[in-house]
Amino acid sequence: MQETSETLLMADQARIHALQNELQAAGLDAFFITNLTEIRWLTGFSGSNASVLVRKDLAWLFTDFRYQEQVKSEVKNAIPIIANDGFITELKSGKYRLDGQVGFQSDKITVSFLEKLKSDLPDVDFVPKPAFFENLMMVKTPDEIEKMQKAVEISDKVFEKILPLISPDVTELDIAAEISYWNKKFGAEKDSFDPIVASGPRGAMPHAKPSNQKLLPNQLIVIDMGCYYQGYASDQTRTVGLGKISSEAKKIYNLVLQAHLLGIESAKAGMSGKILDEIVRNFLTKTGYGSYFGHSLGHGVGLEVHEQPHVSRRSVAPMPAGSVITIEPGIYLPEQFGVRIEDMVLLSESGATPFQKSAKQLIEV
Amino acid sequence: MQETSETLLMADQARIHALQNELQAAGLDAFFITNLTEIRWLTGFSGSNASVLVRKDLAWLFTDFRYQEQVKSEVKNAIPIIANDGFITELKSGKYRLDGQVGFQSDKITVSFLEKLKSDLPDVDFVPKPAFFENLMMVKTPDEIEKMQKAVEISDKVFEKILPLISPDVTELDIAAEISYWNKKFGAEKDSFDPIVASGPRGAMPHAKPSNQKLLPNQLIVIDMGCYYQGYASDQTRTVGLGKISSEAKKIYNLVLQAHLLGIESAKAGMSGKILDEIVRNFLTKTGYGSYFGHSLGHGVGLEVHEQPHVSRRSVAPMPAGSVITIEPGIYLPEQFGVRIEDMVLLSESGATPFQKSAKQLIEV
Repeated sequence: MQETSETLLMADQARIHALQNELQAAGLDAFFITNLTEIRWLTGFSGSNASVLVRKDLAWLFTDFRYQEQVKSEVKNAIPIIANDGFITELKSGKYRLDGQVGFQSDKITVSFLEKLKSDLPDVDFVPKPAFFENLMMVKTPDEIEKMQKAVEISDKVFEKILPLISPDVTELDIAAEISYWNKKFGAEKDSFDPIVASGPRGAMPHAKPSNQKLLPNQLIVIDMGCYYQGYASDQTRTVGLGKISSEAKKIYNLVLQAHLLGIESAKAGMSGKILDEIVRNFLTKTGYGSYFGHSLGHGVGLEVHEQPHVSRRSVAPMPAGSVITIEPGIYLPEQFGVRIEDMVLLSESGATPFQKSAKQLIEV
Repeated sequence: MQETSETLLMADQARIHALQNELQAAGLDAFFITNLTEIRWLTGFSGSNASVLVRKDLAWLFTDFRYQEQVKSEVKNAIPIIANDGFITELKSGKYRLDGQVGFQSDKITVSFLEKLKSDLPDVDFVPKPAFFENLMMVKTPDEIEKMQKAVEISDKVFEKILPLISPDVTELDIAAEISYWNKKFGAEKDSFDPIVASGPRGAMPHAKPSNQKLLPNQLIVIDMGCYYQGYASDQTRTVGLGKISSEAKKIYNLVLQAHLLGIESAKAGMSGKILDEIVRNFLTKTGYGSYFGHSLGHGVGLEVHEQPHVSRRSVAPMPAGSVITIEPGIYLPEQFGVRIEDMVLLSESGATPFQKSAKQLIEV
């Protein structure tokens, strides 16, 4: 539809202009972008090989032969260049004006790659600019929030699909296979990370990989999963019981649920991740289980499943309105079991709105 | 089983010793490894956060709380350290002797990360060592070849499972969902890359992402897929016909098949990737379709689905015996269709042995 394309085009131009304003403010002549996530955010290009050079007056996107069709349909705000011998060779050709102070993503570019850039493009003064895009990308537009909402809807539906499959006859990998399958069947591009399905004592390993172990009866199962929808990630965790769950496990479950709800109630824009992490951690410490919550409370979500703002003891900057974070406290009792409950929330000045609708009371199947 | 664990332990020790010998030869006091693939190859650790410091006398593996259980079962040849505030803070504590010439993976570490290392560990002289592991990792051990064989067996079985599902009633994404599903059901950890399922004109985009488009009747479909088994990747492409395929498409199919078989016949250890790429490219150029083969002939496969040795115009080093490469010529006619046929082969002095068993004659379903 004409209208949609024009709206999108304007959004894309707005991002290039925002970047060009940042260039101006930082005293740079150009910016050199090599990371695919930032390139997707800036230009819409979703291929696996690209570099973008943004000057004050225009932008080029370099990719290779494989994407000569795709680049035409996806990129509206940069001039696409097919550079089969690599963009550095292309830049060396002299066809492009490139000198002065050029910013680069020093937190993404390798030491070797910078050395090559410097030796191949001696007229350029490369200026390290770590995290240059983070502030631009952290605040989500309505269009981005809608895509994340869609990704979460898929995850909620996938969770409903897999709940009836949970039984002592299936393995962790079986459930993981179903999650990956239904993600795609419900319209996601793919998993946003490898699903975690961890039964019984394996649930005490917060990042356990699904194994060939059958789901253990009368034990908790931690299920952490997500998908990408039009480039945007979802991420959620539920812990469910198979059979009769011990009263100790139920107690721990309810503590984690209280901690999770406390996190959602307390979160709002303007607060630092450090403070939010502290509120939930202090609660768990008072219950005596603080030392069994060994990871940070959450992380930003967007085009990447882990992005800014982080929600950890080290996150001192205020989280802006329009940012999306996870709230995922957990208690892990080694060699016994683990509990984690996770939603994504959208932060505003007045509070936090969860994306997920999946039930949070302990489900025993 | 006792015997297996001891054999594995010896293999692990051999890798640490090989690295320590390289240190000696390079005049280094230690080596600092930050990339997870190399860490898995060296220590067996498969978690998502680790750094390894190898000194001439011992090795440490730093990870975080989440992996305190996993690290015990996986790592036998390095001392595991749980460093919840990051390994740099841990190293700064003074508990570890660390000075002199320390090599680092300059082709993997970012510019910002190196700056942080240098400022936090001022007594260390960091020495850039790009591609330090490539020669060590390129030649596969029998154990590694066995795992890759198993990964390929899974892919062959998955291909058999999806062939009967191909019909005008299903979308590209439906087939991709089945591929991801059956990978896991047959025992793979996950896809080694996002499956490509590209029907008709979409097949002319060598890296098309599966879409909601139904499979087009009387058209070719490019299916490129792979999985990880115990960390090792498979990668294969077949192009199949749905319904009645035009004689032009059949002609192109047979040219690509000839090119693919020529590649397998010609490949052997000691040859450079450049020469092998040239042999196949010259054949396609003589048929008049050379300009429609825009990517390189192949790439190494191992713990990563794309690794050394590359098989491209720029790969001048001889490929060693025991390395595994793909041979994947293609012809892509824009807005019409594409054909690609890909196997993995093991190189020896006498030739190349394909891993895949899936049929290569055009299948019309």
